Amino acid sequence: MGYRVAVVGATGAVGREILKTLQEREFPVDEIVALASPRSTGREVSFGDRTLKVQNLETFDFTGWDVALFSPGASVSAIHAPRAAKAGCIVIDNTSHFRMEPDVPLVVPEVNPNDLKKAKRGIVANPNCSTIQMVVVLKPLHDLFTVKRVVVSTYQAVSGAGKDGMDELFTQTKGTFVNDPPKIEQFQKQIAFNCIPQIDRFMDDGATKEEWKMAVETKKILDPEISVMATCVRVPVFIGHSEAVAVEFEEPVDLKKAREVLREAEGVILLDERDDGGYVTPIDCVGEDATYVSRLRIDPTVPNGLAFWCVADNLRKGAALNAVQIAETMIALDLLPNRN
Amino acid sequence: MGYRVAVVGATGAVGREILKTLQEREFPVDEIVALASPRSTGREVSFGDRTLKVQNLETFDFTGWDVALFSPGASVSAIHAPRAAKAGCIVIDNTSHFRMEPDVPLVVPEVNPNDLKKAKRGIVANPNCSTIQMVVVLKPLHDLFTVKRVVVSTYQAVSGAGKDGMDELFTQTKGTFVNDPPKIEQFQKQIAFNCIPQIDRFMDDGATKEEWKMAVETKKILDPEISVMATCVRVPVFIGHSEAVAVEFEEPVDLKKAREVLREAEGVILLDERDDGGYVTPIDCVGEDATYVSRLRIDPTVPNGLAFWCVADNLRKGAALNAVQIAETMIALDLLPNRN
Repeated sequence: MGYRVAVVGATGAVGREILKTLQEREFPVDEIVALASPRSTGREVSFGDRTLKVQNLETFDFTGWDVALFSPGASVSAIHAPRAAKAGCIVIDNTSHFRMEPDVPLVVPEVNPNDLKKAKRGIVANPNCSTIQMVVVLKPLHDLFTVKRVVVSTYQAVSGAGKDGMDELFTQTKGTFVNDPPKIEQFQKQIAFNCIPQIDRFMDDGATKEEWKMAVETKKILDPEISVMATCVRVPVFIGHSEAVAVEFEEPVDLKKAREVLREAEGVILLDERDDGGYVTPIDCVGEDATYVSRLRIDPTVPNGLAFWCVADNLRKGAALNAVQIAETMIALDLLPNRN
Repeated sequence: MGYRVAVVGATGAVGREILKTLQEREFPVDEIVALASPRSTGREVSFGDRTLKVQNLETFDFTGWDVALFSPGASVSAIHAPRAAKAGCIVIDNTSHFRMEPDVPLVVPEVNPNDLKKAKRGIVANPNCSTIQMVVVLKPLHDLFTVKRVVVSTYQAVSGAGKDGMDELFTQTKGTFVNDPPKIEQFQKQIAFNCIPQIDRFMDDGATKEEWKMAVETKKILDPEISVMATCVRVPVFIGHSEAVAVEFEEPVDLKKAREVLREAEGVILLDERDDGGYVTPIDCVGEDATYVSRLRIDPTVPNGLAFWCVADNLRKGAALNAVQIAETMIALDLLPNRN
């Protein structure tokens, strides 16, 4: 007995990855529908061997559907996620729109699965990609030594800006070989062979919204006592976000224990040889489910300091996979009613 | 009345930039010689309108030459820098070989010019590129609020690994458009569309030597009380190192004062609009002399915290320009005898 599943924003980079992930993980699907804006209606997307014709989100009736995985723009979710929830369909929303609302759980299944029980409005939010991979690694360390403060610098792939972001890196890069001046549309400056220290818009305090998200989402998911200082940077990488993380803990840090607990941790793979090439890079992680940890070392410049480098496929664990894992966890916790 | 100047390692990326910088800044040159390993002897390099035939370093007699700007491999400097100094020629060495020796000053002219007076052995060391741009920005802030601890993540260009590094990024990138498998030679993993968290070799404590250099060189140049936690990462950028820096100060931080002092600081340009694109990226800095500071903001996660993003042309301020500025400063301080 499976579920009636809707995928919203099915033609985007994350929407397609959600369809792929549902199929690969053999999510119990009875019926599936691909939805998108009127502009994309009638287009086709793949679900395993099948081809789904994309239907119009705006006129779609969610009555009788069990779960909807939303990954359109934030303004689209703002309108249609509550509409789906009101029709009795559980919404797992990948946009930033509902994340900080107190009655919407913000969940990474390896970190705070039980928050799913608080989804009173029928909406669960999927955290920001750069937050997810960091908290997956911080969680087991927090249990051991209690995280106090995190300083993180990100190296974020262009696919975080969707298919258009990937196309822009591709086109600009190709252009440099034929002397085409770069066309700048998705990002604020040229991204080919460059680094851009801005993701999302600027806030009043000089941080960007992406940096603010990492701080407030970590508090909501892991512990409100943790403070996060983030600098978020777009780099010319197609897929795979990397993060250089320096953590200060309450309690004395034991490197051997930290290694052990990361080796055991769900969703984490420790690959750390302290030798040429003995670490993970974004290209190594494309299509992988785990968050990889390398460069784990004591930070001697502060009491109880530990630093690491982590990398994950931002389209999978950073988005599609985490959303599907939320649905799976809701089934396991008996929170996803099956009306069949 | 000018100087007799030798440029050692003249065929490399930094050597060529030194020749260009000497010419552009109208360094008082009476006679100039380009030197390199026997392998490169006979090749030609440009100095303004002139063409210099490269001579053999191994058999070159430095007697009667006033100053030598060295930029070969560290093992070459180890042999030939002391030989030149013994012949009475002041050596400004761009390699890491002498940097931490107590009787060799390690100098960034905007930061510690007076250390040049301690060059008893006739050798002055040019710091590591990633250190130079950071201490140029830290110096005026240190004078104001006293730096205690720095957490820095770098985004370092491939030209830090010389011309071969640039060629490898170019070839690998081009290869992805024609499905050529990447050839990996200069870096430990593919650098095209990737980030590599290793620069230089690994040390016993899990840090890389590049990270260690940033820590010990900052102490030697600026203040032994400052502790630096660095993560150094190679990114697919041709020229221009970027750094995300979070600083903790002894004294309370005033953002307005910090802005003012950086606006006045020698060698620093503050470009910080807190708006889309209102900051500097590596591509903006190619061929520029200044270190650019953007994203200056209070770090609210720690007492007296301030964060910024800085970018500089690693071949210029990070290497050639700083070396030439050292020579200029030695002239100004009457430390470079002119034997004509």
